[in-house]
Amino acid sequence: MEEEQIKNISINDEEDIVDPWNVSTKCETGLDYDKLIKRFGSQKIDQELIDKFERVTGKKAHHFLRRGIFFSHRDLHSILNLHETGQKFYLYTGRGPSSESMHIGHMIPFMFTKWLQEVFNVPLIIQLTDDEKAMWRDIKVEDARKMAHSNAKDIVAVGFDPANTFMFNDLDFIGQCPAFYQNMVRIQKCVTFNQVKGIFGFGDSDVIGKITFPSIEAAPAFSTTFPFIFGDKVVPCLVPCAIDQDPYFRMTRDVAARLKLPKPALVHSTFLPALQGAQHKMSASDPNASIFLNDTPKQIKNKINKYAFSGGQATVEEHRQKGGNTNVDISFKYLSFFLEDDNELAEIKKLYESGEMLTGELKKVAIDTITPIIQSYQARRAKVTDEVMQEFFKIRQIVV
Amino acid sequence: MEEEQIKNISINDEEDIVDPWNVSTKCETGLDYDKLIKRFGSQKIDQELIDKFERVTGKKAHHFLRRGIFFSHRDLHSILNLHETGQKFYLYTGRGPSSESMHIGHMIPFMFTKWLQEVFNVPLIIQLTDDEKAMWRDIKVEDARKMAHSNAKDIVAVGFDPANTFMFNDLDFIGQCPAFYQNMVRIQKCVTFNQVKGIFGFGDSDVIGKITFPSIEAAPAFSTTFPFIFGDKVVPCLVPCAIDQDPYFRMTRDVAARLKLPKPALVHSTFLPALQGAQHKMSASDPNASIFLNDTPKQIKNKINKYAFSGGQATVEEHRQKGGNTNVDISFKYLSFFLEDDNELAEIKKLYESGEMLTGELKKVAIDTITPIIQSYQARRAKVTDEVMQEFFKIRQIVV
Repeated sequence: MEEEQIKNISINDEEDIVDPWNVSTKCETGLDYDKLIKRFGSQKIDQELIDKFERVTGKKAHHFLRRGIFFSHRDLHSILNLHETGQKFYLYTGRGPSSESMHIGHMIPFMFTKWLQEVFNVPLIIQLTDDEKAMWRDIKVEDARKMAHSNAKDIVAVGFDPANTFMFNDLDFIGQCPAFYQNMVRIQKCVTFNQVKGIFGFGDSDVIGKITFPSIEAAPAFSTTFPFIFGDKVVPCLVPCAIDQDPYFRMTRDVAARLKLPKPALVHSTFLPALQGAQHKMSASDPNASIFLNDTPKQIKNKINKYAFSGGQATVEEHRQKGGNTNVDISFKYLSFFLEDDNELAEIKKLYESGEMLTGELKKVAIDTITPIIQSYQARRAKVTDEVMQEFFKIRQIVV
Repeated sequence: MEEEQIKNISINDEEDIVDPWNVSTKCETGLDYDKLIKRFGSQKIDQELIDKFERVTGKKAHHFLRRGIFFSHRDLHSILNLHETGQKFYLYTGRGPSSESMHIGHMIPFMFTKWLQEVFNVPLIIQLTDDEKAMWRDIKVEDARKMAHSNAKDIVAVGFDPANTFMFNDLDFIGQCPAFYQNMVRIQKCVTFNQVKGIFGFGDSDVIGKITFPSIEAAPAFSTTFPFIFGDKVVPCLVPCAIDQDPYFRMTRDVAARLKLPKPALVHSTFLPALQGAQHKMSASDPNASIFLNDTPKQIKNKINKYAFSGGQATVEEHRQKGGNTNVDISFKYLSFFLEDDNELAEIKKLYESGEMLTGELKKVAIDTITPIIQSYQARRAKVTDEVMQEFFKIRQIVV
């Protein structure tokens, strides 16, 4: 990897900050994702690509694709070409576990990944970076491992198929897989401190564990890291993730070229905004910033009614006259993530923007849409026993 | 660890350079080891400590101790106190494998470690840092692993006891021991880039694998890294090593304090000089710089006769008159490492310094002393089969 190739790609101009540890904007319509594509050097998922996706898979594109929630990609064309010619790839995604309950924003990449798993019928690998959390936060190794196992249950409840999903946490798995550590070494040999400084903004007073961590998020993007699944076959990889994780995979793609391995392809999601509005940080430690996966129907109702930023006007009269602004309205934004029916969403947009639908009515639609999604999630979550977890964590062959 | 605590401790003044990757001096009597003790902040092994060693163990001190070949230590007193009160500790040493055959200089720490193993009857752990070699040199992961396994046979042939010796190479073992990776993370969390820059001289253009490597040499100094041997018992550690490895363990000792684990104790050896003289680098890639473990008696004889730097005078007449200089004579230096009998060595010194013994005669004594040592080593080496190796590499319980 030439040092010139990798530049600091975190966005940090007057308004938007996007890197693996910080995402914020001062703009009430949210991050400028088109600008992000330019700055990160990725490709926009355009109608042509969506058409190709539908043609190649024979499936209607997920509404996350249709609505630009997964908005950016790297080499998705190549993955579709592979699928078209009957060749296999695998999916890889992950999460940095946290002590707090997951919120619905965390679900987005996993919901899309589950859908991709169903569409393509390929193996899926899910990494829990408990080592990262131990390193970045004041969390003990033992506690980070516990958090990973608890978070893993939340992820499994999204609905993954244990037949072709392998899940692991770094602190337990790296010490059970010599190929993982060997690939870490291969990767670590290709990346200098200068490079991680440029990509991730690391400095001289950062601990050495942080400096080396990118190699650990990179390794699972190479099939040779998992010989028990892939043997010695070199299988290409597609990573669905939120756009803030892209720096890891820009690095990984440069390393891939050095190691003569396939560059991982990527699809990037936007972020679900905080209830308080797109310019607010959706903190997992603020219970009012989002809907959490363990919220009761009453909590969901109260939060949306109380906190969901409204694009409506100050008075009913004014609203009837001017209409609501769906570009900043959080209830509408949440519906665009969670209401699958395009016609219904278009109708709501029309009614709200014309002033025919009031904010309270829009909020009710949002509550009635999100509540059953959370309830059926919770029903699945209740069934995730330790035995079910073991199916996902077991180091085993998966038919590719 | 306060950043101030750790300073650059590599010696790099006009004459002497000592760090894990470079050892050299311009002085024909060799490195100034007293100065090293001051600069590294370790303790000299003095007569009082040697007396204590003999009293506590009931054994005569090894000639490496009596002659200052193991010349420096950290906390050896504490280890002797443990032994005196019937408490256990363990030994940890290692080697960075290389493609070349080992020379007798490489043997010194292992010979002493074997003796310590016999005197104290404690578990010994030997680390082969093949990951380090893959990182520092242009060596592939697969080749580094092969080198480690080949070097391991050379080390076993020193005469270690498989009953209480566990040997491993990083590239295979780290991926088989979750506790190792977990301790790596704990260590990596305590050490900043600034610190490894200060201790090891790393720079911004070094690869991230180098920057994190010190955590991998540090981890085996904590018994919790090997739960299959020590369970969850916290057992103190004594590291016999050449003085150039001290920077790793200064770092480890600071980390130990942070992790509330015992600081590893150390005993440091001097270096066997090159045949050409103490100011020459004993390169493993120069076959004439030293005696190699696979040299024939003829090669040993030729090398010593041809290359061993002489402290004798230009002519026999002058030598008879002025005598030889044992401070610079390499044959004499080698005898001080390999001739166990103190009286015989004193007699040789007297004869040579008085001019009674000529250089050719001294060389003959050196040849006659070293050749049988190498021959019996080679006889042991011939018996080290793959089955024998498996005994040492097997992940297993060892009675502590």
